[in-house]
Amino acid sequence: MEISHRSKTFMDVLAETTVLFRELGNIPENYEVLYVHGGAQMQFSAIPLNLMGRKPARKALYLDTGNWTKRAIEEAKNFGEVDVVASSAESKYDHIPDFSGIDWNPEASYVYICSNNTLYGTRYSNFPQTGDLPLVADMTSEIFSRQVDFKQFGVVFAGTQKNLGPSGLAMVIIRQDLLGQTLPSTPMLLDYEVYQKNDSMANTPCTFTIYVMNKVLKWLKEHGGVATLEKINEQKAKRLYDYLDQSDFYSARVKGQDRSVNNVVFDLKDESLMNEFLKQAEANDLYALKGHRVVGGARASIYNAMPLEGVQALVEFMEKFAKAKR
Amino acid sequence: MEISHRSKTFMDVLAETTVLFRELGNIPENYEVLYVHGGAQMQFSAIPLNLMGRKPARKALYLDTGNWTKRAIEEAKNFGEVDVVASSAESKYDHIPDFSGIDWNPEASYVYICSNNTLYGTRYSNFPQTGDLPLVADMTSEIFSRQVDFKQFGVVFAGTQKNLGPSGLAMVIIRQDLLGQTLPSTPMLLDYEVYQKNDSMANTPCTFTIYVMNKVLKWLKEHGGVATLEKINEQKAKRLYDYLDQSDFYSARVKGQDRSVNNVVFDLKDESLMNEFLKQAEANDLYALKGHRVVGGARASIYNAMPLEGVQALVEFMEKFAKAKR
Repeated sequence: MEISHRSKTFMDVLAETTVLFRELGNIPENYEVLYVHGGAQMQFSAIPLNLMGRKPARKALYLDTGNWTKRAIEEAKNFGEVDVVASSAESKYDHIPDFSGIDWNPEASYVYICSNNTLYGTRYSNFPQTGDLPLVADMTSEIFSRQVDFKQFGVVFAGTQKNLGPSGLAMVIIRQDLLGQTLPSTPMLLDYEVYQKNDSMANTPCTFTIYVMNKVLKWLKEHGGVATLEKINEQKAKRLYDYLDQSDFYSARVKGQDRSVNNVVFDLKDESLMNEFLKQAEANDLYALKGHRVVGGARASIYNAMPLEGVQALVEFMEKFAKAKR
Repeated sequence: MEISHRSKTFMDVLAETTVLFRELGNIPENYEVLYVHGGAQMQFSAIPLNLMGRKPARKALYLDTGNWTKRAIEEAKNFGEVDVVASSAESKYDHIPDFSGIDWNPEASYVYICSNNTLYGTRYSNFPQTGDLPLVADMTSEIFSRQVDFKQFGVVFAGTQKNLGPSGLAMVIIRQDLLGQTLPSTPMLLDYEVYQKNDSMANTPCTFTIYVMNKVLKWLKEHGGVATLEKINEQKAKRLYDYLDQSDFYSARVKGQDRSVNNVVFDLKDESLMNEFLKQAEANDLYALKGHRVVGGARASIYNAMPLEGVQALVEFMEKFAKAKR
């Protein structure tokens, strides 16, 4: 934590982390991997600042799947015109809206999605084919939890604090031809090309988070990489959804193929028991099960770091709690 | 590192850190303390975005004392007119320019300085009296190393990685009446009011850096606070400058009252010995003495964490090296 970010020691850590990241994600050669400031939400501004100016219309197409896309849409409106081309708002974001019939406006600069929606427990099982329009994805809550062909995307970004390491920065994976088209007066450290030209060292990066990310990526590699974790994540989610689907005490909010593998959102059919449920869960070392304050309910966030045994312990506790209350 | 930033555990750390910070800095009640993203350099953009719009002229007055003000000036030009009202560029920034005769233009929105210049080893021994114009200071490399009356300033900011903790964020101390005047299309997380309204939790902050800062501030308090550290820092700097001033082998770059207490920049009169000097220093556990790549020479950065014994060890090594080479 004390050594200089320009020391050989740290520069070696950074270089090795990038090699690991590219290898684990199978990042194509014509994509840059950048370490950027401000977490994922700073990218709600950086994405339009970097991409909106690609076409004279300064227009972008957004798919609205919940809280994080709503915020990204509000922010993007400061920098251009936003067309919300699909939304599941009217059914409280309980599914991914159908995007098969969308006519991708060729005058738009980019298309934006959030690939996994933590609050609502939904995720894209497949991605829109947007042709020449670069597809931008906020993958904060699922990066490296399943195999993804990054060639489908123009830009992917992810805050580090779910699957990569502690909080403090975001990773950006950007196709090289999308750099260098920022709007006038883009703040220096919101310009992705500044990071690319300076190997993410235009100023002092969040060194300790990068150091821990290095360790996490090594752990991921030792455990078989993303392909193996993807299988384990599917087992974890299946265990929990299978239990919820046969229960008459709990119910999963999301049905079918749009179910998130990382964030399993569920309700107690008798809502009044929620506080007791959360309290007893904590007493059994099962933490952070409270749903996001915007949506309520319960939520099991079972990212890469959660083993199958953790999910098993949760299911056993849930069954015991249900029996006691029946 | 794994617990939620919205957990009581972390919220308590954050609240306690703020109390400690306010107490140690003697921060006036009408000033907000904010934890902001991007380090100090992101504030090169945020300062004009937050303050340039205060007056219709959209003009700011900058004092140029080296690399960091030059970059801040270039960035501010994206958001308004910049008048460089004083500069020591013509003498390679070896002193703080005289500011006594400056006529502070009342149409300007703010005045900007860098209070301690790490590369050049200069610092302001006292600060410009700018009347109604808010004075903004980049104090990254000296915050909490000397007692400062924050009432003299409109905004003070500092990256955390010198005296406060690991890298990853910046602290902003801002007078309340300066909030809420951003330019149109200011990115959300560059608007200081967004941080103020959300207790610096508009999105996930750099939690581990804040946790370590909490420990550092407790250490500072246990060691007598800023007043005590200021005395020790003066002793450290005096020990080194006294040695340099009597030497015919080394020479200090900066003379007189503008000498930095934190960054002592010096040369070997025979420049060709520098590589050997740095190599032998490292062999004696004296690290990071190489001057910044922009200015060359040698530099001893002796922030709060460096004890007097460390400076003593450096002086002894320097004398031994000089004797061997004479």
